[in-house]
Amino acid sequence: MLDQIRIVMIHTTHPGNIGAVARAMKNMGLVDLCLVSPKRFPDEEADARASGATDLLSSARVVSSLDEALEGCHLVVGTSARGRHIPWPVINPRQMAAVACELRPGKRMAILFGREDRGLTNEELHRCHHHVHIPTNPDFSSLNVAAAVQVVAYELRMALMEQQAGDQPQWGTDWDIDLADARETELLFGHLEKTLVDVEFLDPNNPRQLMTRLRRLFLRAVPDRVEVNVLRGFLSAIDRVVVRAAPDREVAEKSSEALDAAQKESGNV
Amino acid sequence: MLDQIRIVMIHTTHPGNIGAVARAMKNMGLVDLCLVSPKRFPDEEADARASGATDLLSSARVVSSLDEALEGCHLVVGTSARGRHIPWPVINPRQMAAVACELRPGKRMAILFGREDRGLTNEELHRCHHHVHIPTNPDFSSLNVAAAVQVVAYELRMALMEQQAGDQPQWGTDWDIDLADARETELLFGHLEKTLVDVEFLDPNNPRQLMTRLRRLFLRAVPDRVEVNVLRGFLSAIDRVVVRAAPDREVAEKSSEALDAAQKESGNV
Repeated sequence: MLDQIRIVMIHTTHPGNIGAVARAMKNMGLVDLCLVSPKRFPDEEADARASGATDLLSSARVVSSLDEALEGCHLVVGTSARGRHIPWPVINPRQMAAVACELRPGKRMAILFGREDRGLTNEELHRCHHHVHIPTNPDFSSLNVAAAVQVVAYELRMALMEQQAGDQPQWGTDWDIDLADARETELLFGHLEKTLVDVEFLDPNNPRQLMTRLRRLFLRAVPDRVEVNVLRGFLSAIDRVVVRAAPDREVAEKSSEALDAAQKESGNV
Repeated sequence: MLDQIRIVMIHTTHPGNIGAVARAMKNMGLVDLCLVSPKRFPDEEADARASGATDLLSSARVVSSLDEALEGCHLVVGTSARGRHIPWPVINPRQMAAVACELRPGKRMAILFGREDRGLTNEELHRCHHHVHIPTNPDFSSLNVAAAVQVVAYELRMALMEQQAGDQPQWGTDWDIDLADARETELLFGHLEKTLVDVEFLDPNNPRQLMTRLRRLFLRAVPDRVEVNVLRGFLSAIDRVVVRAAPDREVAEKSSEALDAAQKESGNV
């Protein structure tokens, strides 16, 4: 979809903005840049602000009329602040990106960006099927042109990614370690409770809400396997200190047996 | 909600970026900017790129540590490219904006932006509840810091506007003129059909799909009242020419009567 989008900059004054647009486009995966009568281009300042997207500047097409810029495009949208004399169908960048997702193969969409000081003329806006309005603070609504391209390009990429993600399940992915399953988590809580008793922080005859609070904390974080193992390793280390500190040999041996059993259960701690 | 968001820029090198951030923030309605040890600030270049958002630069707080920057914040998110050694919960700017919408009064969220060349350090990222990743072209993923702030600030404003719009009906608004109702549209089609017959473009004995195609075109555009009146005015003008051109007086009179009736029906044409 991104290769069906053409960014058209009209009468841009500052070459730095052209460079920043090239960078924003390449960041988001757009490739087709067309410049209608830029004031200064090519230009060192454009190269500097492009910051590695100079390939996009080299392949940019420079033309002298909007007609040439729109060649081969079927859908034309123009970025605009609100409040023109005759209102046009106005969409926001997200709605525009949704339209872009519907483009069939071979159909191209041009997105027009106007001059730094005055935007698009009414004549240019009347060439458009839709106007795109980026929501802004009404008291300070004039976006930098590269910032506007950045927002529009970002929405296009977001839409593409959502399209690709489709109905794929998202829960429990995007992590390097597998999530712990319920059995592993319960073994952790069992071990934790025993250690809390051994260090005499939890009174089994008056447990109050201590385990409930700890369960809520750890379950809320949805721990992964390594995290569970780290915690059980920590508990085992505490258990060993408990054994060493036990004045009563019998208690120490009992704790030691329980520790061995717990470690067998949890596998590699 | 926007006044509960603090933008924190850490060790920014180029004052131009600070200015561009101030502009992007003010464009989107954000007000709270905090700079941790900026290399050059205040600076003329920052003022120039702020382009009228110098009030935001004046009110920006300059501090020397992240601790100071995060004072009074409850939720901390850091912008980051993917692929850190230990992955953190990663959300995109839209999900981040959804979280921001849930902030209760008195709770503040800080959004951290790192150095131009290296972003946030691991230590800084480990201060964060979430990492925010702006989806990018994997082959060219380093966004300009002001462009990143622009995207994040845009999503916050979009979320605010959606929250405000709530479940309000959206169809048929946002236009200066009322939409034509079904009766007005049908009068237009009746008038159109008659005129098409009069100018001998439509053969009543062999109408084919002409009216169907014209209905589809105009209905797809969902015309407003003024547009319907303009079209009927145009048809009436054609009707008058038909009357003048009629070689047969009887036909002319018949047409004229029909025209009067049509105009009476449509009101002010």
